[in-house]
Amino acid sequence: MSYELYYWDGIQGRGEFVRLALEDAGADYVDVTREPGRGTGEMLKMMESGAEAHIPFAPPFLRDGDQIVSHVANILSYLGPRLGLAAKDEALRWFANGLQLTITDFIAEVHDTHHPIATSKYYEDQKAEAKDRAFEFVANRMPKFLGYFERVLDQNPEGGGHAVGNAATYVDLSLFQVIEGLRYAFPKAMRHYEPQYPELLKLHTAVKVRPNVAAYLASPRRLAFNENGIFRRYPELDVEP
Amino acid sequence: MSYELYYWDGIQGRGEFVRLALEDAGADYVDVTREPGRGTGEMLKMMESGAEAHIPFAPPFLRDGDQIVSHVANILSYLGPRLGLAAKDEALRWFANGLQLTITDFIAEVHDTHHPIATSKYYEDQKAEAKDRAFEFVANRMPKFLGYFERVLDQNPEGGGHAVGNAATYVDLSLFQVIEGLRYAFPKAMRHYEPQYPELLKLHTAVKVRPNVAAYLASPRRLAFNENGIFRRYPELDVEP
Repeated sequence: MSYELYYWDGIQGRGEFVRLALEDAGADYVDVTREPGRGTGEMLKMMESGAEAHIPFAPPFLRDGDQIVSHVANILSYLGPRLGLAAKDEALRWFANGLQLTITDFIAEVHDTHHPIATSKYYEDQKAEAKDRAFEFVANRMPKFLGYFERVLDQNPEGGGHAVGNAATYVDLSLFQVIEGLRYAFPKAMRHYEPQYPELLKLHTAVKVRPNVAAYLASPRRLAFNENGIFRRYPELDVEP
Repeated sequence: MSYELYYWDGIQGRGEFVRLALEDAGADYVDVTREPGRGTGEMLKMMESGAEAHIPFAPPFLRDGDQIVSHVANILSYLGPRLGLAAKDEALRWFANGLQLTITDFIAEVHDTHHPIATSKYYEDQKAEAKDRAFEFVANRMPKFLGYFERVLDQNPEGGGHAVGNAATYVDLSLFQVIEGLRYAFPKAMRHYEPQYPELLKLHTAVKVRPNVAAYLASPRRLAFNENGIFRRYPELDVEP
């Protein structure tokens, strides 16, 4: 039976972290809202159900038979061992989940650079505040998070260019996506910072050429970044660090 | 051997969700930074270590022997079964973790009502933006999250006033803390909204009188809410819904 991924159509967004794991593993899955004859209505119906016991608060969520799993880190924690993208050692799995939750927080801060006041309003309605928040993000938050992940790679006692243990996990795939997104949204800042994070860049390159990832990135299933997603290219927010 | 909880001294903050679980279970634990002769320095040293393999990004984190677990939802997922505060059924544990991650997101939004632009700056430096963000929070986000949790309680097929299954879990304790915090920070808004959420209020009352919780709340270990924490009482942000 296929995994069913529920996420907004038309954007990479948070769903992309799940897609990358499913694609890398060559898993059998359906991206429900992009499926002919299905669509966003079905997803909303599940969320708004007045009877379903395990209603999700928001997409993305995953359905695996009767099991519904919501939130990216939770989905990846669920899928990791099933897809061969988790550490074998239980102790390392707790560490991996902590890393994924740090990525979650980072992504939320990326989102808030263009929506610092209200998700219910347009970017254009909060442009001045967005610029202030983006300045804080680029000056302080971006190097704090990236520097942390660089240290994690650097201090991994098993070395080998992985965030967790001595093999690829979903955390590596997510870090690849973080670099991809930041390069899209904050190209100036990234040009400035990248030389400080050689391990992250090495990881990014290594993930990019994994055969299933490379095939996915070249396929129409990989949506382009755009200004409806989380990583948005607004030149006025790509401030000089 | 005791669990060691690492969190900032002087505030409830995110650490409180972990404390409530440890206290309710009567677990043997040390609140490290509040321990005589220890303190915040020890916590920062772990975070800044250039050798430690599993460095946490930020407090709170938990040490259990050699295992370090960071992020509230991850800590509670780790502690839940060990403290008798998790569902027995594995399927329900995935649901519980999803709920806890929704609480995490809600708490981050509470924090951003007083820090919408920059965590590195004072509230006083972003008061105008805070008021706009608080307006959005009270008008849209608060009822969205609270309404969701009310539905979760209401649609729990096992009933009985619990968020997950038919017994108390760490999610119930966290929902108690959410209500406590919102009543402190947004009393006007809560007076307005509370009648809409009878199940949440029933849960709040039930948790409050659990013997170990009641003893904890009456003890000096329970810090008072204050304006350094996540839930802050700034009357100008307690806007009319």
